[in-house]
Amino acid sequence: MKFTVLVDVRLRSGIADPAGATIERAIPVLGFAGVSGVSVGKIIRFTIEAVDKEEATIKSEELSTSFLTNPVIEDAVVTLSSMDDDL
Amino acid sequence: MKFTVLVDVRLRSGIADPAGATIERAIPVLGFAGVSGVSVGKIIRFTIEAVDKEEATIKSEELSTSFLTNPVIEDAVVTLSSMDDDL
Repeated sequence: MKFTVLVDVRLRSGIADPAGATIERAIPVLGFAGVSGVSVGKIIRFTIEAVDKEEATIKSEELSTSFLTNPVIEDAVVTLSSMDDDL
Repeated sequence: MKFTVLVDVRLRSGIADPAGATIERAIPVLGFAGVSGVSVGKIIRFTIEAVDKEEATIKSEELSTSFLTNPVIEDAVVTLSSMDDDL
């Protein structure tokens, strides 16, 4: 079975987000008002092949914590969906 | 009214994704099999204040195309949700 995996990586609260802070500072200068709390994260998408959803979830979570993210400063949310659902 | 905005930025198809390609090449070396089609995107979250959902959507879309993304190489999906729904 094939699954589409989406890993939503965001900085843990309290960790400096210079990209977000820069955007937030620039927005009023560009003529937009009322925007606050800007944060920039990463989103990693891939396809994984596994026997069932459980195996795919375990593999994806392992991949996420061991390799795709830095758990010291980042939080990740892994979402799986069967490729068959998308069709 | 306050809205939480999520801008999901991904590279247009056909645009080279070196970060995704590097991850895809590295994964088998690290002992994971069956992973393909890796792509890396950005996700920008912020809070916007507006009179109603329509104004918030228009402002967010404008912000997204004019400033947060490069429409030549990137596609963006803007999702709004009322802060009241989250509580």
